[in-house]
Amino acid sequence: MINANGNFQLLKTNYLFQTVAQKTKQYRVEHPDADIVVLGIGDVTRPLVPAVVEAFHKAVDEMAKAETFMGYPENTGYEFLKKAIIENDYAPLGVDLSPEEVFISSGAKSETANFTDMFGKGNTIAITDPVYPVYLDSNIMSGNAGKVSYSGEFGKIRMMDCIEKNSFLPEIPKKRADIIYLCSPNNPTGTAFTRKQLKKWVEYANKNSAIILFDAAYKAYIRDNDIPHSIYEIEGAKTCAVEFCSFSKTAGFTGVRCAYTIVPNEIRCHVKEGGTVSLNKMWNRRHATKFNGVSYITQKAAEACYSTEGKAQIEENINYYLKNAEAIRNCFKELKYTVYGGKNSPYIWLKVPKEYTSWQFFDYLLENYQIVGTPGSGFGKCGEGYFRLTGFGSAENTAKAIARLKAGK
Amino acid sequence: MINANGNFQLLKTNYLFQTVAQKTKQYRVEHPDADIVVLGIGDVTRPLVPAVVEAFHKAVDEMAKAETFMGYPENTGYEFLKKAIIENDYAPLGVDLSPEEVFISSGAKSETANFTDMFGKGNTIAITDPVYPVYLDSNIMSGNAGKVSYSGEFGKIRMMDCIEKNSFLPEIPKKRADIIYLCSPNNPTGTAFTRKQLKKWVEYANKNSAIILFDAAYKAYIRDNDIPHSIYEIEGAKTCAVEFCSFSKTAGFTGVRCAYTIVPNEIRCHVKEGGTVSLNKMWNRRHATKFNGVSYITQKAAEACYSTEGKAQIEENINYYLKNAEAIRNCFKELKYTVYGGKNSPYIWLKVPKEYTSWQFFDYLLENYQIVGTPGSGFGKCGEGYFRLTGFGSAENTAKAIARLKAGK
Repeated sequence: MINANGNFQLLKTNYLFQTVAQKTKQYRVEHPDADIVVLGIGDVTRPLVPAVVEAFHKAVDEMAKAETFMGYPENTGYEFLKKAIIENDYAPLGVDLSPEEVFISSGAKSETANFTDMFGKGNTIAITDPVYPVYLDSNIMSGNAGKVSYSGEFGKIRMMDCIEKNSFLPEIPKKRADIIYLCSPNNPTGTAFTRKQLKKWVEYANKNSAIILFDAAYKAYIRDNDIPHSIYEIEGAKTCAVEFCSFSKTAGFTGVRCAYTIVPNEIRCHVKEGGTVSLNKMWNRRHATKFNGVSYITQKAAEACYSTEGKAQIEENINYYLKNAEAIRNCFKELKYTVYGGKNSPYIWLKVPKEYTSWQFFDYLLENYQIVGTPGSGFGKCGEGYFRLTGFGSAENTAKAIARLKAGK
Repeated sequence: MINANGNFQLLKTNYLFQTVAQKTKQYRVEHPDADIVVLGIGDVTRPLVPAVVEAFHKAVDEMAKAETFMGYPENTGYEFLKKAIIENDYAPLGVDLSPEEVFISSGAKSETANFTDMFGKGNTIAITDPVYPVYLDSNIMSGNAGKVSYSGEFGKIRMMDCIEKNSFLPEIPKKRADIIYLCSPNNPTGTAFTRKQLKKWVEYANKNSAIILFDAAYKAYIRDNDIPHSIYEIEGAKTCAVEFCSFSKTAGFTGVRCAYTIVPNEIRCHVKEGGTVSLNKMWNRRHATKFNGVSYITQKAAEACYSTEGKAQIEENINYYLKNAEAIRNCFKELKYTVYGGKNSPYIWLKVPKEYTSWQFFDYLLENYQIVGTPGSGFGKCGEGYFRLTGFGSAENTAKAIARLKAGK
């Protein structure tokens, strides 16, 4: 019998969001009349904006004619979309990028997970706790997490506790870290780095020849001026940072699947046999071998997000979700909960009453209010005692949930 | 500085089709007036069929309304598409599958490559030569290929020579193989297993607890009755075979990106720590962590391939490509070449004249006839002296290429 990748045995049996979905489904079966409001998984609810819909139809029609039909896409994305991204998301920030540094993909989740293919053994990997589960799980799968101890800790993973005391922002590691995962605005805590705070990380990475994997999937929700929209706003980031962005939470593309990753030409990695190698060239080679690009239709739809109409329509949706987040935040504040996030972020990070664990609070909210959220403990041990809610529901459902909570039933 | 995945250093610098594209581009720059006919890369040219276009538009419109908007897709695919696949591609063959054995993905290329995540070290991997480069390259990247010898051979890879003498069909390994890649109808040689031939492989795999990774991307081109459309037509295949299928070459989806993989519940792998694990459950876990599903829009378009109209329209395209392949095959036969494939397959496998290597023949065809093909040596050492042409061009371009060849200029 063939050998399986034994690292899979080290994973928790269920992916967090699958468990939430299963529990919700179970409740629905047992209470068929319940009017459940899902504010759990970070999925959008607003329909695609008209500019995107128009571009979609147009691209489909192009694919319907031999003269304009498009076959295999470019592995790393079409130049038209790369240019739109550079001109709209980076040039205004004073960040200069070339198209070969932009990689179009079908999602930031798969990109952050697949990026573990780039790294050899022996790197120390710093991950925040709580954290989006994919960073840790993908490193476990690839074997980069190292050996597991009796207490369940991985030899090459260094967890950076994000707790109330440090305002849920990780502290610069005292022991050396080679690969550092940062997410800002953060999922799940809703906190975000200021320029000054992020500068320290870039300085640390450059000084220690480390690499920062910067997840900026929620950058569209930033409203405060001192929070950077890209890590490349920080001087020196191009020699040490990879940035993951997505159209999912910006343009409501969770059901469309389009994202992009920036891998600057300047970043180099060490090769065991001696010498260094370009991370950009490695990632490019991976795309060529293990990916076949994103549909032309989807890339044309993504390009439309940057038209004048597209931008305005999308901005309206972001404001809609931020308004929901603010309402949820205010509701729980009013109910005397301690609440974080919900500003510059669609996520509200709630401290659950002392008598509950995160999963108990999940059950409490589901059973008493028919509201589904995400238990903080699902994001790591420091998430225990916390609970994530999102502004991604409809305004109606959000209002309904708030009314139930305020009414105490 | 962090350690890169050193396995990347063991890859050839360029992916085959990138080199072909670069050489073609170079020729175009030097001969701006040349009317180049590309019969090289296996990319389709016919537009999407009307049934698919209609489904596309409809799904886009659903995404434009809040009531019918779809967010994150199911990681492994929507039930409606899984059911359409089972009912249309398997039930008529007498093959019984359940939806959880079907995994919808964005391409067979990434699926075959990502499947290397499933396996631990120490497995012997049998790969045909010539072969679609992704099977070998993805195993090199993941480290599953083992150590490389001075002569450039990988310790855990066993190449199965496919040469004229064995009609380009691999022979049952004399030494044990754990993982066996088979592609039928074959890319690049255009040959296909009969039921009787494939049965021997299934028996070998079950007897040796090996796993067959069966690439059936070209099954739509099968016309002969004794060639199976699925490995599951062979008794016992469900305990030993994974099957990779795609809408790319069937429905012209190279630019749309949708495929599916069958991982039967019965297949089990050995775990180092003892015991066995379900390959289906492992693949499911990988999807949950490293993938976010295929767009609802794309899955609705794929579903339309199975409507009565869709089927008839697609069949017309397949016949169109097969007619091209036959014409190319006949042309080279007339010119006294030795020709294989081109039947039950869009690929023609040409023996190049003795005075040329594969790459020299590439240059010869490009310079004298402005025809782009793919050098057989790019698919492995046994491909040296051969050349791949495809029926995927337009009928006009195919006729143009044939006319040039027959005229000797």
